[in-house]
Amino acid sequence: MYALGMDIGGTNTVFGIVNREGTVIGSDSVKTQDYPDLEEYVNTVSSKIKALIEGAGISFDDIAGLGIGAPNASYYTGTIEKAPNLPWKGESIPLAELFSKQLSGIPVKMTNDANAAALGEMTYGVAKGLKHFIMITLGTGVGSGIVIDGKMVYGKDGFAGELGHLIVDRSPEARLCGCGRRGCLETYCSATGMIRTARERLQGVTINGSKDVYDLAMQGNADAIEIFNETGRRLGQALADMVVFSSPEAFVLFGGLAKSGELLLKPTREAMEESMMPIFKGKTKLLVSTLKDADAAVLGASALVWQ
Amino acid sequence: MYALGMDIGGTNTVFGIVNREGTVIGSDSVKTQDYPDLEEYVNTVSSKIKALIEGAGISFDDIAGLGIGAPNASYYTGTIEKAPNLPWKGESIPLAELFSKQLSGIPVKMTNDANAAALGEMTYGVAKGLKHFIMITLGTGVGSGIVIDGKMVYGKDGFAGELGHLIVDRSPEARLCGCGRRGCLETYCSATGMIRTARERLQGVTINGSKDVYDLAMQGNADAIEIFNETGRRLGQALADMVVFSSPEAFVLFGGLAKSGELLLKPTREAMEESMMPIFKGKTKLLVSTLKDADAAVLGASALVWQ
Repeated sequence: MYALGMDIGGTNTVFGIVNREGTVIGSDSVKTQDYPDLEEYVNTVSSKIKALIEGAGISFDDIAGLGIGAPNASYYTGTIEKAPNLPWKGESIPLAELFSKQLSGIPVKMTNDANAAALGEMTYGVAKGLKHFIMITLGTGVGSGIVIDGKMVYGKDGFAGELGHLIVDRSPEARLCGCGRRGCLETYCSATGMIRTARERLQGVTINGSKDVYDLAMQGNADAIEIFNETGRRLGQALADMVVFSSPEAFVLFGGLAKSGELLLKPTREAMEESMMPIFKGKTKLLVSTLKDADAAVLGASALVWQ
Repeated sequence: MYALGMDIGGTNTVFGIVNREGTVIGSDSVKTQDYPDLEEYVNTVSSKIKALIEGAGISFDDIAGLGIGAPNASYYTGTIEKAPNLPWKGESIPLAELFSKQLSGIPVKMTNDANAAALGEMTYGVAKGLKHFIMITLGTGVGSGIVIDGKMVYGKDGFAGELGHLIVDRSPEARLCGCGRRGCLETYCSATGMIRTARERLQGVTINGSKDVYDLAMQGNADAIEIFNETGRRLGQALADMVVFSSPEAFVLFGGLAKSGELLLKPTREAMEESMMPIFKGKTKLLVSTLKDADAAVLGASALVWQ
């Protein structure tokens, strides 16, 4: 049997076929923003999926289902609720149902992208064998997926695990977040947040992306190194706060910033241990995803099917 | 069948026999601090429990087990780890084993006191029927018990749910906490924390307990009312942060401060809703325990037996 996995992002929608061993045997993508019309989007993606299945020499009878990771997706209803970066209007978009109709009625499960990433790590990645861990995705925003006793935490409405929106700065001048509040973790520790810090600090230097800050730091630029230290410090303090909630065995970091290596990990680990409540000190690992970027999103979403 | 319940606190150890319907059919207590010798403590309490059983006209064959709620108790090992307010020395005290030996070998389960309270509310109180809720005990400290999908969250080591130690003030002048860090929720929102605030604000007034602040507020003292507002505001903001973790249906408040009614609940509810991430707004109830004080601790601990 095979599973289909799909990751819906503000920029790209990536999808593919995954076998039981976790190998992506075929994948494709579309630009999400090219399809402001929802019906056209679902039809186009479904056609491309059918082509992939045909190309792989298999049929719908060999497909156990489709797993979708998407921002603001609810696991319980199979809908996307008010996702600010997706092009479709409406409070609640029943994507699971729409795709199932186009794809021979196969079961479709949805969850938010960070939860999908957590499932991917648990099924195929560094979290294999862990019962209690928290996935933190450091991308455009900060996403999270919480696993307790080997199970994804969905909460009453399927929206649990929005740890990027823990308030880490309660001062009136704290940064404004896309969610409408101030001081959320993601305004400081996402790639976007770090770029914001860099633009404030590195006068006269053009910063196009977090890679620019990384390059400067690797060249020994003291301000750029301090920006990583500060980002790691804020992240580490927030991780220590998350520990008092579920006492996880590990955090798994994923996304652009997580690839900065010790530049970010060292200050994060130090701040986490320093801020940790004594009974939890020295017990929580800080891991980095080892899944290939190109495959991680599809793998994670496909893992929903095997749950 | 019956269950035994025991609550071990820094001041008192309370224990009793509970029937399947949740009625405490007999109870007794000792002063914990009167027994610095662990063996003498276990022997005395066990004798009193045997007397209760005899007095009720039942035998050990009718007892399904003993549940113990105690600070820093681990569910997995049945031990108490480094509890600062208990009189016994040693890193790890195997209380479950010691009591089982004295009580005809009945099964003994332990968890921390706030987790026991959560089980009590779920089995006999306002959380009956809820699948996702967080218990917050506002006493000498702030304790918590997290229930997700109808199950207690214990984490990798049995110590999950220490939400009283979320850091709510990261400034250097934040209050010092018993855990050795600064700015923990419990330094502001426990009864002790509110007394600290009152002593800072109410010059020339002797404050012996949180009841004094309550009485002043009920008499219309503006400063005392503002102390409740501020305590509620801090608590509400922290509750909003907890919501992004597990998206609970409700918080259940218990303990001395929770009995202050709308004086505390109104500012708490307002701050919680105001601080809430938009997708969670208006979805989380703020409930107050309805279990009788005298019975709640024993009932909660006894509920461990039926899990």
